[in-house]
Amino acid sequence: MKPGRPNLPGNATAPVVGERALIAGIRARLAPAPPWLLLGIGDDAAVVKPERGALEILTTDALVESIHFDRRFSSPEDIGWKSLAVNLSDIAAMPRLALLSLALPADISSAEVHALVDGFLALAVDARVTLAGGNVTRSPGPLMVDVTVSGFARARHVLTRGGARAGDDLYVTGSVGAGAAGLGWLRDGREAANGVELEGIKACVLRHRRPEPRVRVGALLGRNRAATACMDTSDGLADAARQIAQASGVGATIDAASLPIPSAAREYFRRAGHDPIGAALAGGDDYELLFAAPRRSRGRLATVVRQSRGVPITRIGQLTSERHLVIVRDGVPEPLPEGFVHF
Amino acid sequence: MKPGRPNLPGNATAPVVGERALIAGIRARLAPAPPWLLLGIGDDAAVVKPERGALEILTTDALVESIHFDRRFSSPEDIGWKSLAVNLSDIAAMPRLALLSLALPADISSAEVHALVDGFLALAVDARVTLAGGNVTRSPGPLMVDVTVSGFARARHVLTRGGARAGDDLYVTGSVGAGAAGLGWLRDGREAANGVELEGIKACVLRHRRPEPRVRVGALLGRNRAATACMDTSDGLADAARQIAQASGVGATIDAASLPIPSAAREYFRRAGHDPIGAALAGGDDYELLFAAPRRSRGRLATVVRQSRGVPITRIGQLTSERHLVIVRDGVPEPLPEGFVHF
Repeated sequence: MKPGRPNLPGNATAPVVGERALIAGIRARLAPAPPWLLLGIGDDAAVVKPERGALEILTTDALVESIHFDRRFSSPEDIGWKSLAVNLSDIAAMPRLALLSLALPADISSAEVHALVDGFLALAVDARVTLAGGNVTRSPGPLMVDVTVSGFARARHVLTRGGARAGDDLYVTGSVGAGAAGLGWLRDGREAANGVELEGIKACVLRHRRPEPRVRVGALLGRNRAATACMDTSDGLADAARQIAQASGVGATIDAASLPIPSAAREYFRRAGHDPIGAALAGGDDYELLFAAPRRSRGRLATVVRQSRGVPITRIGQLTSERHLVIVRDGVPEPLPEGFVHF
Repeated sequence: MKPGRPNLPGNATAPVVGERALIAGIRARLAPAPPWLLLGIGDDAAVVKPERGALEILTTDALVESIHFDRRFSSPEDIGWKSLAVNLSDIAAMPRLALLSLALPADISSAEVHALVDGFLALAVDARVTLAGGNVTRSPGPLMVDVTVSGFARARHVLTRGGARAGDDLYVTGSVGAGAAGLGWLRDGREAANGVELEGIKACVLRHRRPEPRVRVGALLGRNRAATACMDTSDGLADAARQIAQASGVGATIDAASLPIPSAAREYFRRAGHDPIGAALAGGDDYELLFAAPRRSRGRLATVVRQSRGVPITRIGQLTSERHLVIVRDGVPEPLPEGFVHF
């Protein structure tokens, strides 16, 4: 990890105050480096011993202020947590290390930056991910948090979007629509929530602020070879179903009644004038896993369910040889909505 | 590589127009994937076969508009090129793959984004780096280009900032001060350059726009075990000398007369009212390598010089057991200036 490039010469403003102090502070709070991390924060690059006999999985994703979060609704800790969560959600393998690249606006305090890093490290500890490097620079505009995660998997355990077959069942972890509804509840404020059960709203808000990436379930699905294809639902369940279907050369039918939409989320969508099913399908911001599994893998899947520490896994439909994307509501098939919808 | 997270629900603006089309366009222009890249652009994560018996080196760095570049002075191609160059400069090993994370402002056209990617890929082809994944999202403010590079090296060939010893000579590749002067010439315009040799100015401007990372020299230094410590000069030569000295527990003495400062750069600093030596030492934006080598390695260093295809390598000083940082001018020792200075 290192301070950013120098500013443009002639740029009137100073570099981020305390860049080096910030990095020293982060370094001081890290657990001792694992034996495979030969060189971590403090040099230009991290030096890592690859996991023997495994493939490396690499992913990168950024959170940008006012595109992906609003500092009025998410604390610095929330933002740090989520910046790692959205990456872990993409990896569907055992994550091992992360690189953290921060672009800091002038109005962010050093305490806020440390809080952001604390949120990042809280999830990193949970997920056994080591912060191995990164970069700190200034931003003339929004706060940006760009994270790269590296993990590993045996070749025969790698899960991709492709690989599903017609006849496979479609499953989703956790719930659908809570993240989008959570931000909606935050934005619309207390009055909009009159008469709705507070616990339900809180769960939605927590989902928006601190999504729990399904790292364990993803790794278990791979390790047990229980799924044929897998993708996270961060762009919405409808989009994930479309991507898996396209990459696998199949179609999909989803049963609306089976969708695990929390009641507080349904209520939010209803009050906002939206069809709850359509909004939940299109919503995104959930970071659940959508995966396909053939019937003959149900035994393996049962093993995954047993080991997944209470994360619900719900069968919501099936892949079909006809390459259409369909949602069945009250027995009536309709076209699946197009990905993400703004509401 | 994938489109970014969905926007905040309620965010009135649409996602980057053509995100998926953009990614498809990038994918179409890539060379066929090398055999070690099992899954590249198009899925959530890249899947890579590690280089057998080697360590992995990982680094990340971001370029932020109006902090690190100015779209009036750098073309989209320049920005794409430089975003990879600044990362390759940090790796001092054989780079293998890159992840490209883009945050795109509303006023950037699809043609400009493609041009940026073209600039990135031009250097990637030169440096034999494969674009293996990334992320595209919107920015409500500046254009941001965040790149992660992974490379590999044998354990005994890894070069870090630490490892230098008192008595080692200090060397720098290429030239010093050209990048900072290049931007200065760009900003001050034609009139400021009256009477200065145009070729010299052009070389400085090119250094700012399209720095040549010293990947080959870095890899040769490692492979030939010719250096004891190495760092790039992107934060300025003075800063790099300080970092190597601190990490190695030594001091350094630099001989001002030996510094390879191009005459056009000297002239820029002089006209701008700065001491050319001080400005060149503090300048940054050069992406050269500063490295330490003991006298007994001169034979190995000669091998590196022979194989480095004409990149100049200049001895500029020595590391000392006294932990001071000194610049000697006309026989008079002075304290080395503190890192980056804004002029």
